[in-house]
Amino acid sequence: MKPVAVDAMGGDKGPAEIVSGARQAAEKLGVPVWLFGRPDVVDAAGPGGLEVVACSEVIEMHDDPGVSVRRKKDASVLRAAEAVRDGTASAMVSAGNTGAAMASALLRIGRIRGVHRPAIATPIPVPGSRPTVLLDAGANTECQAGWLVQFAQMGAAYARTRYGLAQPRVGLLSVGEEATKGTNLVKDAHALLADPSWNVASGGTFVGNVEGRDVMTDEVDVVVTDGFTGNVVLKTLEGGMHFVERALLEAMTATEELRAAFEVLWPAVLPLVTALDPDSYGGAMLLGVDGVCIISHGSSTANAIVNALDVAREMVTADLVGALRTAVSAPAVDPT
Amino acid sequence: MKPVAVDAMGGDKGPAEIVSGARQAAEKLGVPVWLFGRPDVVDAAGPGGLEVVACSEVIEMHDDPGVSVRRKKDASVLRAAEAVRDGTASAMVSAGNTGAAMASALLRIGRIRGVHRPAIATPIPVPGSRPTVLLDAGANTECQAGWLVQFAQMGAAYARTRYGLAQPRVGLLSVGEEATKGTNLVKDAHALLADPSWNVASGGTFVGNVEGRDVMTDEVDVVVTDGFTGNVVLKTLEGGMHFVERALLEAMTATEELRAAFEVLWPAVLPLVTALDPDSYGGAMLLGVDGVCIISHGSSTANAIVNALDVAREMVTADLVGALRTAVSAPAVDPT
Repeated sequence: MKPVAVDAMGGDKGPAEIVSGARQAAEKLGVPVWLFGRPDVVDAAGPGGLEVVACSEVIEMHDDPGVSVRRKKDASVLRAAEAVRDGTASAMVSAGNTGAAMASALLRIGRIRGVHRPAIATPIPVPGSRPTVLLDAGANTECQAGWLVQFAQMGAAYARTRYGLAQPRVGLLSVGEEATKGTNLVKDAHALLADPSWNVASGGTFVGNVEGRDVMTDEVDVVVTDGFTGNVVLKTLEGGMHFVERALLEAMTATEELRAAFEVLWPAVLPLVTALDPDSYGGAMLLGVDGVCIISHGSSTANAIVNALDVAREMVTADLVGALRTAVSAPAVDPT
Repeated sequence: MKPVAVDAMGGDKGPAEIVSGARQAAEKLGVPVWLFGRPDVVDAAGPGGLEVVACSEVIEMHDDPGVSVRRKKDASVLRAAEAVRDGTASAMVSAGNTGAAMASALLRIGRIRGVHRPAIATPIPVPGSRPTVLLDAGANTECQAGWLVQFAQMGAAYARTRYGLAQPRVGLLSVGEEATKGTNLVKDAHALLADPSWNVASGGTFVGNVEGRDVMTDEVDVVVTDGFTGNVVLKTLEGGMHFVERALLEAMTATEELRAAFEVLWPAVLPLVTALDPDSYGGAMLLGVDGVCIISHGSSTANAIVNALDVAREMVTADLVGALRTAVSAPAVDPT
């Protein structure tokens, strides 16, 4: 397999964290990796034996994505995308500026033929079960009904490829189960998805509208929504989980006696904490561009990068892009 | 104080649960209560000494709200709203069909002069701090920017009246802090709310865009959004919290040894569990109708009804409706 291009400069925790994750993925999992970044910075982070592709510029977390991808031609994230376009790299991973990573992939790698808009697919943890794939988690703030149908097709293809589901259950996020509930966008998308030919063509089963409370359950495999709602849902859940975890931890360690009891429970609780940690899931996948592109959380730890590289390799090997190509070429529903 | 009209027929748990809560509120808190419902059913539920207003019809949870409020003229929830309109009751509380409760209040009590659309305001628990008021949590699926400005005004008035905040911090839910982030609706509403005259007129302080992760923090007092997004956020949080609580509980009681340790921790954890329980918050308030109208969760327990009646009394006494009237008459921003 060709190497995975890692944007070594991205992420809130700095290059050392990213480089450390890349090194671990190469050493422990045998994932071939190229590091894209400023050589002095990457070298200082200790790349081990990994190959470094020198780039002179960095798109910072606060940079405007549109402006910076035009001006910083030698930025690490853009160069990583170019390596995928040129076929020298098999996939790209960035934990940097999300907008810049999306723009880089879109401009350099380009869309799969027939795709209206790429979408960000994020696995939502469902402890004790497979994650639910939520998309669009933030790429497209304003959407059209036909795009949501494509998100459903791409989400189903992703769930099949990544989790081995033969016929993923796809739900449309709304405020009630009835087809008459929701915004005009949701009602229009519902009508398109409810067309029986959709199921035959797409390899997913449309289970109708789902509600916010269904996202973290095993009732549905793929949840489709516009990028505004999806991003709000994702951040609401992350914030809520984080808050409850912290409040519980404080309550359970407030005194010596409680701490002693908590230590007995900790090994039993740890798997759940790990399962709820976004770092466990390998980051979000930008579906619809003509290459495997993983956008990791800005706060990614080295462990998150290890998991992202593991998923990248898996999706390259399983030909995710080929599965997406087939999914969006399904002729049954006119996605305009 | 005039009695609070309680729809005794609503709720997933049946009339006995509602009637029990009403009786407890009357006995323990001294809230004056009238029960609206079928006399045979209410009598069987044991109303104690509470007055029963006989109604022959019931709008069921699955009934179409629009159709049923037109056809079932003697429905308990409609009659409760009529009592508020006629001034014989001071407020209404229903745990039944949410759409029917909204329609009843809107049709019978009517809107406060100048209000474009009433909105559902739901307190989101923030353990260790005051709840965050989220609105609209589901009344208006499609919104206009001017409506969101009124939601901000009404939400600020509610936070002042209910939580005693002099100048509540009002945030607009979006996908980034920058004014340029979000849907066109959010960008338009941001521009209106950022007008400095808004703050002067409304008695709230606009703190800009907030994200999903801010909802369960003490960074903001009121979060404004459209009814689709608000409902999705509310149900996502409820589902997520419920799921994590259940998973934690299972993990911490899986063996004898764990159970013993858990029993030590339980008293420390209980306040947090209570704080996260929607039943603790007295239900959602329909802001913008010309009377106090509380719409409790369909799954309300007797305890939820006790809290709803306590809040109803408090909001009648504190003249919430007067505060809302003042808030929406603020002339600084044209809310059209």
